[in-house]
Amino acid sequence: MADPLRIVLVSPRNPLNIGAAARAMSNFGFTELRLVKPYDVAFREARSAVHSEYILKEAKVFDSIAAATADCTLVVGTTAAERRNLQVPLYRLETAASLVKEQLATSSVALVFGSEKFGLSNEDLSYCNWLLRIPTRQEHGSMNLGQAVAVCLYELRRQAEAAGERVEMPRRAAAGDYECITGLLMELLDRSGYVPERTATSSELKIRRLVRRLFIPQTDVQKWLGILRQILWKVKSVSDPHG
Amino acid sequence: MADPLRIVLVSPRNPLNIGAAARAMSNFGFTELRLVKPYDVAFREARSAVHSEYILKEAKVFDSIAAATADCTLVVGTTAAERRNLQVPLYRLETAASLVKEQLATSSVALVFGSEKFGLSNEDLSYCNWLLRIPTRQEHGSMNLGQAVAVCLYELRRQAEAAGERVEMPRRAAAGDYECITGLLMELLDRSGYVPERTATSSELKIRRLVRRLFIPQTDVQKWLGILRQILWKVKSVSDPHG
Repeated sequence: MADPLRIVLVSPRNPLNIGAAARAMSNFGFTELRLVKPYDVAFREARSAVHSEYILKEAKVFDSIAAATADCTLVVGTTAAERRNLQVPLYRLETAASLVKEQLATSSVALVFGSEKFGLSNEDLSYCNWLLRIPTRQEHGSMNLGQAVAVCLYELRRQAEAAGERVEMPRRAAAGDYECITGLLMELLDRSGYVPERTATSSELKIRRLVRRLFIPQTDVQKWLGILRQILWKVKSVSDPHG
Repeated sequence: MADPLRIVLVSPRNPLNIGAAARAMSNFGFTELRLVKPYDVAFREARSAVHSEYILKEAKVFDSIAAATADCTLVVGTTAAERRNLQVPLYRLETAASLVKEQLATSSVALVFGSEKFGLSNEDLSYCNWLLRIPTRQEHGSMNLGQAVAVCLYELRRQAEAAGERVEMPRRAAAGDYECITGLLMELLDRSGYVPERTATSSELKIRRLVRRLFIPQTDVQKWLGILRQILWKVKSVSDPHG
């Protein structure tokens, strides 16, 4: 069965952009690419590119938006600007994607992108049920065509649940592990002359707290103990060469 | 104040990709671009491009990831594959973005992208606190560099609230309006010979239900009434030329 989402590029002029759109479709698992009056040389060049996607090879060419979207129950235009004068609903991508996904469950949707230079004309837009806007800065609204396609398709594949995905933090070492490490570090500091005899007790508390403030993953405890023992062995051999 | 999010490109080779990354940054309002050992010709070419972004002009070049990320408290690597062997947390973009946003509230974060050909090496990754994966198909995981940057920055700017944004449907015309339209249509059909005399009543119900099933926006009622009246006038003048 054909993919119910149709990506429609109107009059694309740059072969790299056509190729980039096809690549994003492949990345996010969409297959149905349609081109309306593509600039001929651009299309041929994109198609013959070495890494051209199979999606591009099977892209269909149409003479008009009407023909390219005839089998779609919902036609969504993309626009960078606000275009308030059009009296047609304009949704941010976040909202638009959920409306599109709803529709895709039962029927076909066309997502229409204008040419690199001019975007969609008012006539093009008259074929659209409503418009979608990627939330870019108003001062620099217009996105590169290939990037705009990628962002829209990402939003369609995005999983809201994944955002709440449980973040697996490594497990913190147990108090006993911290104490072993503290003990070795204390002995090491003692032998290195870091801890003056007369302040030994208060120093021990300070060191213990210092170590407790570290986050030591449980899986790294043995490595740290090994490191400290090795250094301690070296320090002992230096301070007590015949011990 | 410098932007707390640093986009770090490691050994980029294609000037178009460097330019595309800068353009996406401008689209989504980020300014701090850092390049680690860029391929020299590519960087010069990207910078001298006619539409080169101001971001690109101010991009800083570093000799190592360590230097490029030295002032960041969180360093996030991007990867296409699962790379299970690395024993470093890997989050989907949806989750990763919320962790990054949390961190950006108080400190600086580096988002590190590998070269087009090889991605990030294991050595590169050892400088990263954790990894991020854009949820592409496993069979075709690797994204174009410029598109990957665009998708990540979109997710950082995305507003969860916007997804629940109230969808403003145009207001439906009132029952009285529907009845006016039904009345005119009935008269029109009557005069056009669509409704046979003997079934007039059951037809009226059918037409009424047919019109009620339409969604007619309130703001379009006058237009529809005008259209029907105009046609009715024409039909009358045809059927009753001297009336």
